[in-house]
Amino acid sequence: MRHYDLVVIGSGPAGQKAAIQAAKLGKRVCVVEKSRDLGGVAVNTGTIPSKALREAVMHLTGRSKRGFFGRSYRVKHDITIGDLIAISQRVIHNEWDVIADAFDRNDVELIKGTAHFEGPQLLQIVREDDAEMITGDRFVIAIGTRPARPESIPFDAKTIFTSDELLRLNALPKSMIVVGGGVIGTEYACMMATLGIRVTLVEGRDHVLGFLDDEIAEAFQYQMRQAGITLRLGEKVECIDKLEPDAARNGHAPLVQATLESGKKLRAQSLLFAVGRQGMCGKLGLENVGLEFDDRERLKVNEHYQTTVEHIYAAGDVIGFPALASTAMEQGRHAVCHMFDQPTFSMPDLFPFGIYGIPEISMVGKTEAQLTDEGIPYEAGIAHYKEIARGQLLGDETGMLKLLIHQDDRRILGVHAIGTGATELIHIGQAVMAFNGTADFFVHNVFNYPTLAEAYKVAALNGTNKLMHV
Amino acid sequence: MRHYDLVVIGSGPAGQKAAIQAAKLGKRVCVVEKSRDLGGVAVNTGTIPSKALREAVMHLTGRSKRGFFGRSYRVKHDITIGDLIAISQRVIHNEWDVIADAFDRNDVELIKGTAHFEGPQLLQIVREDDAEMITGDRFVIAIGTRPARPESIPFDAKTIFTSDELLRLNALPKSMIVVGGGVIGTEYACMMATLGIRVTLVEGRDHVLGFLDDEIAEAFQYQMRQAGITLRLGEKVECIDKLEPDAARNGHAPLVQATLESGKKLRAQSLLFAVGRQGMCGKLGLENVGLEFDDRERLKVNEHYQTTVEHIYAAGDVIGFPALASTAMEQGRHAVCHMFDQPTFSMPDLFPFGIYGIPEISMVGKTEAQLTDEGIPYEAGIAHYKEIARGQLLGDETGMLKLLIHQDDRRILGVHAIGTGATELIHIGQAVMAFNGTADFFVHNVFNYPTLAEAYKVAALNGTNKLMHV
Repeated sequence: MRHYDLVVIGSGPAGQKAAIQAAKLGKRVCVVEKSRDLGGVAVNTGTIPSKALREAVMHLTGRSKRGFFGRSYRVKHDITIGDLIAISQRVIHNEWDVIADAFDRNDVELIKGTAHFEGPQLLQIVREDDAEMITGDRFVIAIGTRPARPESIPFDAKTIFTSDELLRLNALPKSMIVVGGGVIGTEYACMMATLGIRVTLVEGRDHVLGFLDDEIAEAFQYQMRQAGITLRLGEKVECIDKLEPDAARNGHAPLVQATLESGKKLRAQSLLFAVGRQGMCGKLGLENVGLEFDDRERLKVNEHYQTTVEHIYAAGDVIGFPALASTAMEQGRHAVCHMFDQPTFSMPDLFPFGIYGIPEISMVGKTEAQLTDEGIPYEAGIAHYKEIARGQLLGDETGMLKLLIHQDDRRILGVHAIGTGATELIHIGQAVMAFNGTADFFVHNVFNYPTLAEAYKVAALNGTNKLMHV
Repeated sequence: MRHYDLVVIGSGPAGQKAAIQAAKLGKRVCVVEKSRDLGGVAVNTGTIPSKALREAVMHLTGRSKRGFFGRSYRVKHDITIGDLIAISQRVIHNEWDVIADAFDRNDVELIKGTAHFEGPQLLQIVREDDAEMITGDRFVIAIGTRPARPESIPFDAKTIFTSDELLRLNALPKSMIVVGGGVIGTEYACMMATLGIRVTLVEGRDHVLGFLDDEIAEAFQYQMRQAGITLRLGEKVECIDKLEPDAARNGHAPLVQATLESGKKLRAQSLLFAVGRQGMCGKLGLENVGLEFDDRERLKVNEHYQTTVEHIYAAGDVIGFPALASTAMEQGRHAVCHMFDQPTFSMPDLFPFGIYGIPEISMVGKTEAQLTDEGIPYEAGIAHYKEIARGQLLGDETGMLKLLIHQDDRRILGVHAIGTGATELIHIGQAVMAFNGTADFFVHNVFNYPTLAEAYKVAALNGTNKLMHV
């Protein structure tokens, strides 16, 4: 029976970084993966394919250049699902190679099969044709999540589906109802609308993406509506039904009906259900180690990603918010450093958020609402892309960057961006925040011209000018 | 006779920022501009139009997406000069508005006409139909440069031209000789080659862009050759002659011949002369204030951009290297703060360089050669875009980011990037350098996934792993 210093369950971002960190510390480590493919949701059905799809959508529809060439400009007409899928497959294959190569170079053993705890340190690995037992001193559970699929919804993978099936559609519908205004729902709603699909998004709360700064969320909602998306906010779906196709309408007939609690009926050719994701802890045999999970099969951890069972850690989507690949990697690394008593250093207040909507959104640090709640006096400095030469060159008239600046010591408390390159741009502010930098750094810094990064200078000038009048 | 606290000559980036800084200090300030259009070379014939052209070239030729769609992919065939010019005109018009608006809001007076010193504080402004005299306590000379035009070269604005005329060509040639491997020569050589024009670049030194880090220059030269550019390095042009058109060759005949000192003859349909730029101090009447200029009509200044005449400062291209819009702005601002005894703060070691070649290049801090010369022990940490998910998504297989890390205290000493987004990306490293940050910041930082910014983490890991073996 093979024995490991560390057994990692799941090969997504959290599992990868956990395993590689342990290997670098000289530990014997294996990764157990039940799927045929490495990389988990991030590589196979989530982050990477959706971002590849987004790249393709932006380019093929000419969306990113319409500022230049006029609203009716299109690079390619008649986009098929094939155009979009082909692109993401290539990227996915490459990521498989990158992960396998990293495991190989670091002597991380890969064990294919489904993991099941038989005892606190005993794991059974079940495969189609055989099974084996392994033992481990410590474990990281990084099994990720899958889309929630309430039984009341008649999923059929063609007209009513989750994000997993969306990427496998063999034709683009003419219209789509998106249920859920979280990251997944809004990202796909934006892509589908940009492809010319008539989209209605239903969200139970008053805002999409509740964790965003209000001004950014408002700008994003405005942009979504400008792109033709109908937002039904503060509305809940009561039931979802399939409709009989109406042959007379020649491919344009609605095939799905969503009835809202308010009584409204929405009809479309398809429905994407994107409310919540579900852990998969139920099949892990956790009862054999004395570990409990919540009603969505997710695990609770402390600040070191340790569960209530001392030698078992958990990282990534299985522990819930923010459920981003970037934070999952850091959680995996941090968990392993902690379990092997390695000094480590983490800046959770500076974890950035990136939402690949159209437009892109990113943030780091606090929102205006949080600062107000906490009684921290701040001023906001704002730059609009249209004021910046690079914004003009890109044809991005609507992008903006907001710095939240402490009124007393002028430290940067938060950075919020919406527009082209927002997810890249945020890291400049993040670095300055990490070193307790002030708005004056941006005022005095020389930026390449013309770049979007100049928005930091414009925003800092705007903010510090306002501070002079306080 | 109007009197000003400060008279700024020239409305380019240096002049703009000088004037606005003085206005913010409550000074009475005017800007004298001889051209019909505001903004100087940066807006009208240099930075902005060339970057607008680059955006258009990248998009219309599909260059930025060929990684995805294959080498033969084109978004638009048969590109005319009209396609390209239309785009830059719109951006230029907007920049005029932005500058005029900034002058207006800050009560900066704009005086159209050509400036001529009649005495140390007396300036004549000459216009077509009239003239006036103004006086100033202090002056900033920010008159920029124009392309050098040696008399031996038969410029005709159609087949033999400088960058000024290139943007006004009414047809694209089939082939081009580019003389000069500086920023302007290489940027246009890359754009023309990407448009399918057969380009030969002649540079007297052994490298293009002599100030770059060697590894980056080498990668850039490799990419240029891959794009079909013939590089003739270490070669000098002896003479340039026009050829008689050969009607039988139906638009494909060469029209220009460049003879190199080595005896080689190069023939093409056009020649861009991009060796050096020339100041225009000769017509300023500087003899009336006792100020001398060099043989290229440029001015010498001290570290505060002050000339040998105490109340006259100079900033921007007229003082020579690096002759970038970004640094010009900072020079103008700094000069004014110094002349009015305002405390200021400048980080000239952290001025970034951006070259909008294809691919893009950017750097901040020292090169490997400089560090070696100075005896500073360093290690290089390298990330290739192809290792990074975002690089894959963008189809950029060749981009790279290099961090130069102090071997003892692990501080970042230089950042060098070539590839998509390099001019934006560099600012993350610049911020960390400004706060004396170490490579460990990047190792521990969480970056949005997938972004190019992750290259910092990959490069830092690469570099710190190498340091473990020192």
